[in-house]
Amino acid sequence: MQWYFVAALLTVLTSSQGILTTLSQSNGEYKYDYATVPFLAEVFKLAVSSLLLWNECQKSPLPKMTTEWKTVALFPIPSVIYLIHNNVQFATLTYVDTSTYQIMGNLKIVTTGVLFRMFLGRRLSNLQWMAIVLLAVGTTTSQVRGCGETSCESLFSAPIQGYMLGVLSACLSALAGIYTEFLMKKNNDSLYWQNMQLYTFGTLFNMARLLVDDFRGGFENGPWWQRIFNGYTITTWMVVLNLGSTGLLVSWLMKHADNIVKVYSTSMAMLLTMLLSLFLFNFKPTLQLFLGIIICMMSLHMYFAPPNMLLDMPLTVKPDEEKLIEVSVDRRPHS
Amino acid sequence: MQWYFVAALLTVLTSSQGILTTLSQSNGEYKYDYATVPFLAEVFKLAVSSLLLWNECQKSPLPKMTTEWKTVALFPIPSVIYLIHNNVQFATLTYVDTSTYQIMGNLKIVTTGVLFRMFLGRRLSNLQWMAIVLLAVGTTTSQVRGCGETSCESLFSAPIQGYMLGVLSACLSALAGIYTEFLMKKNNDSLYWQNMQLYTFGTLFNMARLLVDDFRGGFENGPWWQRIFNGYTITTWMVVLNLGSTGLLVSWLMKHADNIVKVYSTSMAMLLTMLLSLFLFNFKPTLQLFLGIIICMMSLHMYFAPPNMLLDMPLTVKPDEEKLIEVSVDRRPHS
Repeated sequence: MQWYFVAALLTVLTSSQGILTTLSQSNGEYKYDYATVPFLAEVFKLAVSSLLLWNECQKSPLPKMTTEWKTVALFPIPSVIYLIHNNVQFATLTYVDTSTYQIMGNLKIVTTGVLFRMFLGRRLSNLQWMAIVLLAVGTTTSQVRGCGETSCESLFSAPIQGYMLGVLSACLSALAGIYTEFLMKKNNDSLYWQNMQLYTFGTLFNMARLLVDDFRGGFENGPWWQRIFNGYTITTWMVVLNLGSTGLLVSWLMKHADNIVKVYSTSMAMLLTMLLSLFLFNFKPTLQLFLGIIICMMSLHMYFAPPNMLLDMPLTVKPDEEKLIEVSVDRRPHS
Repeated sequence: MQWYFVAALLTVLTSSQGILTTLSQSNGEYKYDYATVPFLAEVFKLAVSSLLLWNECQKSPLPKMTTEWKTVALFPIPSVIYLIHNNVQFATLTYVDTSTYQIMGNLKIVTTGVLFRMFLGRRLSNLQWMAIVLLAVGTTTSQVRGCGETSCESLFSAPIQGYMLGVLSACLSALAGIYTEFLMKKNNDSLYWQNMQLYTFGTLFNMARLLVDDFRGGFENGPWWQRIFNGYTITTWMVVLNLGSTGLLVSWLMKHADNIVKVYSTSMAMLLTMLLSLFLFNFKPTLQLFLGIIICMMSLHMYFAPPNMLLDMPLTVKPDEEKLIEVSVDRRPHS
């Protein structure tokens, strides 16, 4: 399977995720406990990976599986990073409004590039760095508040702590991705075996989270497992399956492509969601969305196009006077 | 003289032009007839060019001067194009509001690239085309209306004729630049001789315009030459000198560099003006100005940086698994 096919599929599914989640609400609110969705998605991913691993075990050669504890012990770490990230995110939102938080979220694109270079030691060309910055600028541009929208004053008027936490949040989010890539490429174990370890811990952490929510709520509605499917509709199930599938695709990309490919997929998905929302939810198109899409497309081309395609001609700043075309003017000797 | 030094100077002077023009107003209105400014600027340019040509004539070898009528007859054409452009601009503004007109003005960057390729036959690399589009996107981004601003609804709600005229206006404006470049590079005549021809016609056309204004006004205030300096202050004279100097720099760039360099200079000047206005006129900084500046800087680097600087590394999408750095995990044989 080619990485760009998987990346395109990830874009479409990630984009559907936002739209399905909106559609799964009734009258603008969730009738189900949203915290059950990532838990069930983890279970789904675990089930799919187990099945695929079992299938792989039927063939020869047998899939490679490292069961040494030192390696297995690395797999809960992404879940731990996400746990810290969620808490930082929560703390950030006490300082900044959601719009500012959304804008700052684009910083993740740049931090991913930086950590990609620092921790995975991968070198990027000058042009690729520019492409990464432009991707972040493009997604931010598409989110600039149009005029006539409410609550404009709040943007970037938060205390400094809010911005520092926002930067920390962007770093943690990038770190989780970079660490997962490191983990998946560390050895040539079967992807399904690596997934199983990742999702087992993912399931456990999500379970713990549901339990903590129950404790906080004083078990008012009973334990989570008794009301897990309350309010579920067919759309809610689609949200679960979609989230699970995107997780599996991301995991494949971490093994066979890299974090930058993932970042492009999800950024393009954000723009696709905004574009689809224009039609589905009758949103008004804005100039900034249109500009953001152009910038991101340019960035995509700059990052992935082969250099010989980008530079098919030598760059000449100092013009060559001989190249001027002839018009209907005689070049007679000067009088 | 290096072209980038001239281009930087043009940026600073063009940027001052907007600020000086604002400062030359008293209580938000012009106490002088603004139409006299371009006329006097043309006279200034003509005087400077004559002086420089006379100086050149004192030395040997004598400057090259083609006086054949077929060549001289080409020099009023830029003035004619500007005349048509001014009328199209006027017609456009009867359909669209000034904000939309300003946004559409960025199209000139792209049309200059297209005419540069078509009429001057100059080839640009894929990356340079992308840089030109990004420059237009960047300047447009900086002009996106912030929220809370008045009259938002009017943007892009004009009849189709307005947009067609806007495109025509962008083409004419680009054509004037491209034609001037063709004219200046057509032969190796002295720049000052070419300037003298250009500015003689420029002076005549501006004089005619003042006269037409007088006829339209029924000579209520007397002929233009009797009240030409009415309301002039020291700032007004600085506006005139500044406009004249930018004209001379543009002319130099047309001869020794090209239209794309000029377009970059004036686009950067627009951003510089907005940036300076933040301090001088206490404007509120917007996220879109900041994003626009980043985009234009990237575009500048993409267009002018040498390819080997941009692509210091081979592009690799498919990651090399051997490049992963070691962390404190042993790579023992799998158990």
